[in-house]
Amino acid sequence: MTAATTRSEHDLLGDRDIPADAYWGVHTLRATENFPITGTPISAYPHLIDALAAVKEAAALANEELGLLAPDKARAIVAACGEIRSGKLHDQFVVDVIQGGAGTSTNMNANEVVANRALELLGHAKGEYAYLHPNEDVNLGQSTNDVYPTAVKIATVFAVRGLLKAMSVLQDSFAGKAVEFRDVLKMGRTQLQDAVPMTLGQEFSAYAVMMEEDRSRLAEAVELIHEINLGATAIGTGLNAPAGYAEAARRHLSAITGLPLVTAANLVEATQDCGAFVQMSGVLKRIAVKLSKSCNDLRLLSSGPRAGLGEINLPPVQAGSSIMPGKVNPVIPEVVNQVAFEVIGNDVAITMAAEAGQLQLNAFEPIILHSLSESITHLQSACLTLAERCVSGITANTERLRASVENSIGLVTALNPHIGYTAATEIAKEALVTGRGVAELVLEKGLLPAERLADLLRPEVVAGRGVPTT
Amino acid sequence: MTAATTRSEHDLLGDRDIPADAYWGVHTLRATENFPITGTPISAYPHLIDALAAVKEAAALANEELGLLAPDKARAIVAACGEIRSGKLHDQFVVDVIQGGAGTSTNMNANEVVANRALELLGHAKGEYAYLHPNEDVNLGQSTNDVYPTAVKIATVFAVRGLLKAMSVLQDSFAGKAVEFRDVLKMGRTQLQDAVPMTLGQEFSAYAVMMEEDRSRLAEAVELIHEINLGATAIGTGLNAPAGYAEAARRHLSAITGLPLVTAANLVEATQDCGAFVQMSGVLKRIAVKLSKSCNDLRLLSSGPRAGLGEINLPPVQAGSSIMPGKVNPVIPEVVNQVAFEVIGNDVAITMAAEAGQLQLNAFEPIILHSLSESITHLQSACLTLAERCVSGITANTERLRASVENSIGLVTALNPHIGYTAATEIAKEALVTGRGVAELVLEKGLLPAERLADLLRPEVVAGRGVPTT
Amino acid sequence: MTAATTRSEHDLLGDRDIPADAYWGVHTLRATENFPITGTPISAYPHLIDALAAVKEAAALANEELGLLAPDKARAIVAACGEIRSGKLHDQFVVDVIQGGAGTSTNMNANEVVANRALELLGHAKGEYAYLHPNEDVNLGQSTNDVYPTAVKIATVFAVRGLLKAMSVLQDSFAGKAVEFRDVLKMGRTQLQDAVPMTLGQEFSAYAVMMEEDRSRLAEAVELIHEINLGATAIGTGLNAPAGYAEAARRHLSAITGLPLVTAANLVEATQDCGAFVQMSGVLKRIAVKLSKSCNDLRLLSSGPRAGLGEINLPPVQAGSSIMPGKVNPVIPEVVNQVAFEVIGNDVAITMAAEAGQLQLNAFEPIILHSLSESITHLQSACLTLAERCVSGITANTERLRASVENSIGLVTALNPHIGYTAATEIAKEALVTGRGVAELVLEKGLLPAERLADLLRPEVVAGRGVPTT
Amino acid sequence: MTAATTRSEHDLLGDRDIPADAYWGVHTLRATENFPITGTPISAYPHLIDALAAVKEAAALANEELGLLAPDKARAIVAACGEIRSGKLHDQFVVDVIQGGAGTSTNMNANEVVANRALELLGHAKGEYAYLHPNEDVNLGQSTNDVYPTAVKIATVFAVRGLLKAMSVLQDSFAGKAVEFRDVLKMGRTQLQDAVPMTLGQEFSAYAVMMEEDRSRLAEAVELIHEINLGATAIGTGLNAPAGYAEAARRHLSAITGLPLVTAANLVEATQDCGAFVQMSGVLKRIAVKLSKSCNDLRLLSSGPRAGLGEINLPPVQAGSSIMPGKVNPVIPEVVNQVAFEVIGNDVAITMAAEAGQLQLNAFEPIILHSLSESITHLQSACLTLAERCVSGITANTERLRASVENSIGLVTALNPHIGYTAATEIAKEALVTGRGVAELVLEKGLLPAERLADLLRPEVVAGRGVPTT
Repeated sequence: MTAATTRSEHDLLGDRDIPADAYWGVHTLRATENFPITGTPISAYPHLIDALAAVKEAAALANEELGLLAPDKARAIVAACGEIRSGKLHDQFVVDVIQGGAGTSTNMNANEVVANRALELLGHAKGEYAYLHPNEDVNLGQSTNDVYPTAVKIATVFAVRGLLKAMSVLQDSFAGKAVEFRDVLKMGRTQLQDAVPMTLGQEFSAYAVMMEEDRSRLAEAVELIHEINLGATAIGTGLNAPAGYAEAARRHLSAITGLPLVTAANLVEATQDCGAFVQMSGVLKRIAVKLSKSCNDLRLLSSGPRAGLGEINLPPVQAGSSIMPGKVNPVIPEVVNQVAFEVIGNDVAITMAAEAGQLQLNAFEPIILHSLSESITHLQSACLTLAERCVSGITANTERLRASVENSIGLVTALNPHIGYTAATEIAKEALVTGRGVAELVLEKGLLPAERLADLLRPEVVAGRGVPTT
Repeated sequence: MTAATTRSEHDLLGDRDIPADAYWGVHTLRATENFPITGTPISAYPHLIDALAAVKEAAALANEELGLLAPDKARAIVAACGEIRSGKLHDQFVVDVIQGGAGTSTNMNANEVVANRALELLGHAKGEYAYLHPNEDVNLGQSTNDVYPTAVKIATVFAVRGLLKAMSVLQDSFAGKAVEFRDVLKMGRTQLQDAVPMTLGQEFSAYAVMMEEDRSRLAEAVELIHEINLGATAIGTGLNAPAGYAEAARRHLSAITGLPLVTAANLVEATQDCGAFVQMSGVLKRIAVKLSKSCNDLRLLSSGPRAGLGEINLPPVQAGSSIMPGKVNPVIPEVVNQVAFEVIGNDVAITMAAEAGQLQLNAFEPIILHSLSESITHLQSACLTLAERCVSGITANTERLRASVENSIGLVTALNPHIGYTAATEIAKEALVTGRGVAELVLEKGLLPAERLADLLRPEVVAGRGVPTT
Repeated sequence: MTAATTRSEHDLLGDRDIPADAYWGVHTLRATENFPITGTPISAYPHLIDALAAVKEAAALANEELGLLAPDKARAIVAACGEIRSGKLHDQFVVDVIQGGAGTSTNMNANEVVANRALELLGHAKGEYAYLHPNEDVNLGQSTNDVYPTAVKIATVFAVRGLLKAMSVLQDSFAGKAVEFRDVLKMGRTQLQDAVPMTLGQEFSAYAVMMEEDRSRLAEAVELIHEINLGATAIGTGLNAPAGYAEAARRHLSAITGLPLVTAANLVEATQDCGAFVQMSGVLKRIAVKLSKSCNDLRLLSSGPRAGLGEINLPPVQAGSSIMPGKVNPVIPEVVNQVAFEVIGNDVAITMAAEAGQLQLNAFEPIILHSLSESITHLQSACLTLAERCVSGITANTERLRASVENSIGLVTALNPHIGYTAATEIAKEALVTGRGVAELVLEKGLLPAERLADLLRPEVVAGRGVPTT
Repeated sequence: MTAATTRSEHDLLGDRDIPADAYWGVHTLRATENFPITGTPISAYPHLIDALAAVKEAAALANEELGLLAPDKARAIVAACGEIRSGKLHDQFVVDVIQGGAGTSTNMNANEVVANRALELLGHAKGEYAYLHPNEDVNLGQSTNDVYPTAVKIATVFAVRGLLKAMSVLQDSFAGKAVEFRDVLKMGRTQLQDAVPMTLGQEFSAYAVMMEEDRSRLAEAVELIHEINLGATAIGTGLNAPAGYAEAARRHLSAITGLPLVTAANLVEATQDCGAFVQMSGVLKRIAVKLSKSCNDLRLLSSGPRAGLGEINLPPVQAGSSIMPGKVNPVIPEVVNQVAFEVIGNDVAITMAAEAGQLQLNAFEPIILHSLSESITHLQSACLTLAERCVSGITANTERLRASVENSIGLVTALNPHIGYTAATEIAKEALVTGRGVAELVLEKGLLPAERLADLLRPEVVAGRGVPTT
């Protein structure tokens, strides 16, 4: 006799056959049928799966502590959640990342997987919910409306850690180049027009500082994500969650995750509000803007090799053209630009989803989670790729850069205090008419001795007060 | 002696080992290493893979016709492309959907897969490029800069066909309800305030017309996508493509795809311009806006069951709550709303990518393709899901709807011409003060006989000139 | 005895004093108090004021024709509207451009101004509404919900005409430069890297074609705006508008405006749908994207004067710096870029407003009108300014451009068919190592006679098939 | 002999006639001709004009302190700036709000107005720049690139103060209603479906908390705006600004403005980075999202009067319809929604402008200033208008609200612990089938005594742990 290949489960719409080896159940089945949108299951976001398991574990411990859940059930739930958090059973989280219902299907998927694994651990077969029930036991004292936002926040905190690290790598990469290029003189530009001299080290130091500031802003934004609404249940009144539950669940969840979580003071507000996600996305957008600006600069500075600015060289990482032999393109900055555009687009999607929340709940948190996760993980990949495959290998065309300063008209602004306004104006005019360099003319006319001019063009003099000494 | 598990390939950066069974080669390998961004390979867009194969096939036929490619090579390339277009080898298209380099890596991936499969068909081993070369033969007379945009356009045309069909299904679904509900009287609302009577059929007929109009707009936008730049090569000057090539390639490509393709009059412009994609995305955004608005209405009209408008019932498709038994939520409209938000966000990403193009090329077409594809396919799923799992099963609470009309103050506006302004005003005031219904008061005061009132409330009278007779 | 400085008017909220010389009345007064948002009155959009007057005039003529409005009243209304359309009384349109209420306040403002001016023409004092009433006569058979969208559409059609003309001027300006620079050889660039030769004329020709295509798209989009819903009244059922009214009003309105207006087939749909505005804004965004791209290129090509690309010179229009004497900046392209960013932002605002429509009406049309008007008029100014103060005065650094071609490595791609692949590769390598030019090396090694090389570098040869002969 | 009506001024483009009474000069004249975009002059932003004057004053004091500017000149400049800061001469700031050139025209406008007023104070005629020069004296040691961003930041800080106050007013308004409605029982809703009971006070308390949290976020974001780059001059190297200048200027500027300003540690970075503005706009967008959500709710809760939810009444502020007598619409929330859409659109414009910065400067700060100012001032008006013309006058339909709870099925969830699961399920079924209320059935069947039921429906019991006791 062969084993049954399906089991039957029941919900308010009737009976359905579930594959016998599936840890998920009827609610999950219906959700997969209802939301055939992207083809990407929520298991694509491992931090979210881990966070859901952490929440279920914390709730079970709180319920046990309050005498609402039998110790053997609690132990089985905790064990099942532990397995999930160690990376197991993630393939059982099969609901589409874009789904209706405020995350209910995701929560149901978690309840069912945890229940069925816990049933096995208790020696029962999957589906024998009389012994341990997805809703009555695993979801005890909970609602999607407090479980899901709490899990999304914890997942976001963990995802952001990865991004912060990647940004730190990129910052170090820029900072390393700032030191390497500290003595490389070049023309600074405003509005793409030649302005006054600076060093290439200053240029890269600015990119490093941008990353540093953005990391600070991101770290601040992630702080706001530590406020959770677990215990709020359906709409924030805590209906069906006993006194002490919210506090106990928070305590256990903090212990499990190692995060200093705080329960919101006003749970009705916390249950409907997506402000912290909008803020987080706004900061991700800020990071995207800076990254994109930096990559635009890198592409511009490395333009050429002959008919461009040609100031720096990006390391070649692949052939650039299928038709022009030897052409190498700035493909790494280009891919970072595109991630930035995606993040900026995601911010608009998140904004609309947050604005569309109605009354006591925002039903559109799944797209917020989806867009946020995408933005965070793609930015992380982009930062690491940029650091490792581009910035760390950048070299400078030192001679060309120095020549552009000596040949510039803008140099005259810097020499003004030393040769006098009248002489400076004359030199500028002559340079303009003849096409010759200012440095050359100053020496030729004996306005400054060569050593003095060299002294004024020393990088540390040119750099001025723009960058603190490192 | 066992077969080698790798082969060696060479490019300008040196030698690399390629898995012996891989149809892709060294350029693809480097691209997968350079762009570890989303984890989603370009094979996720089957229309694009098919379109790339169609372009390669057309180019080979044109080159053969012009005597530039030996017939046996051409036949092998054509055969390999045919296999790909029949769905084979798609798993060999492994480059990330978000990639730097204006699509070069995608084009290289295609060149390598086609070359290696053609080599096999010619009796050679993969990698024996001396017999048939990815660049010199498969890519002959081409550049990424004409191949990639052309393929993206063809892929988009085919993807849009699916969306147009799905929209048609949804339109029919709305139109069916418009007929079914043609006699259901209800109060129309402006600014969420009770306005004047209408029929529920009119309400659904508006949704059907919106879909119909949007389909027309989409069909117009897709026309613009039939203009291609094949033959432009690197920057639109047609360098390295012989006279007659562009026309021959277009002719073959039209025959292969069945599409009335047109070569752009100004190839320099066509090679750098992303306007048609921006326009397409703008139309997708328009569709998203309408879909979202319709779903907002469906959710509003079905709100309740008791403390809401409760005018219509959406078919239950899954349990709505993990805590409130029996609650059923409008999850299908909700998921459609979220797709709409995503499409609107994608439009911003596409806009930024298009704006960022520089000089003779837009390097950011990969994110444009990615975002467009996502918008089109998700909208398609959303329309079908909405039609099949929601609209087709909607029922009306006819009694409640009729009562809301008879009980409304707004009814007085409609009776105004029949009972006179003074009486109408009196009735309105009394209704307001007593909370009683206008119809009831009109009858009680004998202002109209019951049959006359009933006559004035006949749906066809109420519907007025708002909707043409179906 | 002095004249009274105020008159008293009454509405459902009570009595209010109105300045005796004001043509607007109590509804307008309340609206100005309720919406103190931007400080900009709707008179800032003269096309809207004219369009409102045209609608009121058409409605009066239709009502007269149908025997609903006494001929003397009709004549007075028509005369008042005529004055407004000739530019008078615009200062009486004082409601804020951002206002609640779906345009009701704007419509009321129009009703009051027309009524009071008509009263004067009839020999009555302003405010003597017993003789001619803002609502009962001027607004007869109308609702804000059909008047306002109809007026917005007519206003948009007229505004777009101005933009189309400005785009035409800019297109001609680009096209003029395309002819002027047809013989100027330069290096084309992809991904900011030197690619293959082209002419500067081709570069400008691409900008001209972009404008031309965008004009076509805009002209198509404006066609959709000719469909109106006048006669729909409150929600599209035509309640209170007699049979024949919609057709008569449309006919008169077409005659007054000279526009081929069409009444929508489904008035319920037409009353709630903002799709045509979303589409229009999408096309404006497309134009903005192209304009911005073109300006980015102009700024890049004119970068320098010494440490930049320095290919073209923009005419100086003002001093560029308060600190660097002689610096001239690309301020005209910069201001155009900023208008483009504004238009792209406005598109998001319009999208959100359109999506937020509920049931039978979109209450947010005022912000749609405001954003659309701003986008159209600012784009118009930007196009004219760009044409007249920048493009028309652009000059080319012909020698520098030609040198960049002769000095380039990319030239070898073009010479490949003429000197053979092996020689070409050798030349490229030597050029790379020595920093010398390809042309120079080819001549030195006798690979081509000087005349033949010159022949291959003739602009018409280089331009290839990229641009049709003008 | 009559006075001359013009004076002549000279710049690098030649001579121009300036109206004799104009305080602005030739640079301003050219700018007004070059940027005919919006018609709105920068004087529309009084905070910016004041901030520019403050910067000029601080610079003069620093220059005097360092011995670079003669005391009489310094005194005259300081006096002129003082006049401007007291509201005078604002009409002389005539450059368009959208302008090219990174703010140079705005800075030049300021230099010229200050110089000419200072000249008058010194007893000279306007235009006698030999005695006091706009560039050499007023702009001494400065560049647009440090003056403009510094002024924009100070202006933003002051503008935000007004917004913070308005938000506080709105918060208080919501909080007042939260107290007033603390005993009003109602059904809470999730996904627009009846959920579980709550109080109307809790609903309004959530809005108050949202405002409070957003105020905190805004206050944090404004902190970042206190970091300035004055002393950076052209690109951040401090060229032409002597040692000690940056610190002295900052000190004086802090004293003048009363703000704890900080000089950025890396001036090169600070001169090119717009991150703080992007962040600020992101927070404004967050506020807009919350405001819009709250207004959506207010419109929904007040829908009706009969065929809607009808839970609350917004105070009527104007007649709602030109066709439906007595109709009153939620025009105040509607105008707030529209401001929110505008702010969200502005955020996209700001994002694009920030991303478009190149190398050592962002040339697009004028559109950033324009959009930020618009967002801040419109949000301020919106908050005040919402508080004063809507929220403060809201009343509750207490009986209808209580009936909706007693009549709901969702009530059974709350009674579950008190009547047992089996009875609860039976009651729910019967209520569903018969359409009768749960409360009614519970009493009829004697499941609970009337007093006990009443006790369970006491607002403080229903409110649960959702809101801390006030």
